[in-house]
Amino acid sequence: MPHVDVHSHLYPPEYIELLKKRSEVPYVKLFPHIGLPCLCNRPYYPASGGLPGRPLTDHYYSVKAKIAFMDTHGIEISVLSMGNPWLDFLEPSTAGEIAASMNHAMNSLCQEYQQRLFFFAVLPMSAPDDSAIITEIQHITTLPQARGVVMGTNGLGEGLDDPRLLPIWRELAAANLPVFIHPNYGLPASVWGENHASSQILPLSIGFTTETAIAITRMFLAGVFDTVPNLQLILSHSGGTLPFLAGRIEACIAHDMKRALSDEPRVPLWEVLRKNLYLDGVIFDKIGLRTAIEASGIDRVMFGTDHPFFAPVKEMPLWPAMTLNRDAARELLDDKEYEMVMGGNAQRVLQL
Amino acid sequence: MPHVDVHSHLYPPEYIELLKKRSEVPYVKLFPHIGLPCLCNRPYYPASGGLPGRPLTDHYYSVKAKIAFMDTHGIEISVLSMGNPWLDFLEPSTAGEIAASMNHAMNSLCQEYQQRLFFFAVLPMSAPDDSAIITEIQHITTLPQARGVVMGTNGLGEGLDDPRLLPIWRELAAANLPVFIHPNYGLPASVWGENHASSQILPLSIGFTTETAIAITRMFLAGVFDTVPNLQLILSHSGGTLPFLAGRIEACIAHDMKRALSDEPRVPLWEVLRKNLYLDGVIFDKIGLRTAIEASGIDRVMFGTDHPFFAPVKEMPLWPAMTLNRDAARELLDDKEYEMVMGGNAQRVLQL
Repeated sequence: MPHVDVHSHLYPPEYIELLKKRSEVPYVKLFPHIGLPCLCNRPYYPASGGLPGRPLTDHYYSVKAKIAFMDTHGIEISVLSMGNPWLDFLEPSTAGEIAASMNHAMNSLCQEYQQRLFFFAVLPMSAPDDSAIITEIQHITTLPQARGVVMGTNGLGEGLDDPRLLPIWRELAAANLPVFIHPNYGLPASVWGENHASSQILPLSIGFTTETAIAITRMFLAGVFDTVPNLQLILSHSGGTLPFLAGRIEACIAHDMKRALSDEPRVPLWEVLRKNLYLDGVIFDKIGLRTAIEASGIDRVMFGTDHPFFAPVKEMPLWPAMTLNRDAARELLDDKEYEMVMGGNAQRVLQL
Repeated sequence: MPHVDVHSHLYPPEYIELLKKRSEVPYVKLFPHIGLPCLCNRPYYPASGGLPGRPLTDHYYSVKAKIAFMDTHGIEISVLSMGNPWLDFLEPSTAGEIAASMNHAMNSLCQEYQQRLFFFAVLPMSAPDDSAIITEIQHITTLPQARGVVMGTNGLGEGLDDPRLLPIWRELAAANLPVFIHPNYGLPASVWGENHASSQILPLSIGFTTETAIAITRMFLAGVFDTVPNLQLILSHSGGTLPFLAGRIEACIAHDMKRALSDEPRVPLWEVLRKNLYLDGVIFDKIGLRTAIEASGIDRVMFGTDHPFFAPVKEMPLWPAMTLNRDAARELLDDKEYEMVMGGNAQRVLQL
């Protein structure tokens, strides 16, 4: 059974070129004291005196580097997704065309290794109306290496519970394209306190995961999974914090006057977890991994590495972002379950 | 083995009187269309058209109602804490005196049932300098029913990683007073989106728990547990989201250039969870409860109900906030473990 990485980012070189022309985040810029251009895909609080962004190694844009990483780490297949912030920032008038061109580029890159590389496509979320998004979904269905789409939590600018997204969810469900949900926006910086303004530890560990949990719970409370019952989402970072909080969320609903007294039928969150949501296995520990598996099912959790965003700080033969997530599965699971999480589930769900 | 509830709130009547005199949150006010005064302890977004606060039943301030709840629900002992927002809002000059008087009142209430009621005392966190806080800690050690203190995440106004808190942590640790950490401030309202501005579901389920996880992780990153190694905290709501995120937090530290290359020794978060942190069992589900137990240890999780904040929406014989948390433990644990979580751990740690 091959190992499949469903959380693996690649920016097509065209995207890097686009970022090089920009002077506001997101952008790519050469900082002479670092010696490499930096990818600033999110605000990095430059006042910190630390790095202004991520040194742009070829891991971020080169298919050859991706394949080399996969070979070194025993990963047979990767399902690539553009990293955040995708196309969220584009001028509306250009979004549709750029999305088509990025997806075409990703498809071509994957075709160089067509048994090993597949991808989640991007949508022109800033397009002036949803027809451009629907058109791009139809385009994606013609791309042989595409296996779904990747989306941030911003939606059309108002979050994933925006009713204007319903036609898009319906179209994605009808096209059998799972949506890989990934955070980018985190939480307002005020929550981290002054001592941590210079660090990405809290924004990435708690900010990202909370952003995902909020986005999906908002969708759930807005009834999206009732309205589009066959919508399939794959949640980054093992669902953010959703698997741990699901019981509390249901308890808060049961104790909310308006919700609890409503006669409207609704699918409970636990059922959504087991019917609409897949979780990646990027959780770095077996305690969290077990929680994710118990919440959504052993047939719904899929190994991932988040490559290349967790590059080791010092040179080492294997990246801990791979080994920690693999070892968590290995320690926790029997052979059959291990194969499901490490590749079988992804192969089945994404038809790899 | 008696059942012990470590997460049980009571406002002494003196506190309710104090809130009745206020016209800003927190306050208690009679809203004629409800027929009961309402406790507005946090902003309730009155634009919603829903309730402006919580109908102030006697569960909030009456020892008799507390004992009746305990009797109905098979709870032998409760460790009471004032509910949020405690004394955080007090004029600095009055804080010390009011704290002493509230703690005296709580102690007297508990002495009415001195085998069954104990309490976590409040500190005058808004006092002009820490000597008033230290003085009150010394006062608390003389109160026979006191078993620790309750504290929000605001600290002295700058969060729990504020270095000005170090003398207070040291004093609490030296006095062997565990600190029950409870959320109040949640997350900035912008993260909930417009559709949920009228609801407390997201602020209470995700806001509260994230607030706790952020506060403790900030303390951890600031080295508080290295500096005050015998500090003991009891975290509300099974640690917020900390047990699920601990692996990711450690991974983010290991991938942070500055932290990872530092030679400074530090206790890992997993060790803090097993050495400095106790978790209550207010998680409403066995999946989350198992995560909490795996993260901190079977000897460190203590049953709680959050009474009276999760009052049933419809009349029913037993409150689900009790039965859900008890049943989660019952389904998950063997007899010995069940007794530890339901009471044994609290009896040992809090000397009940």
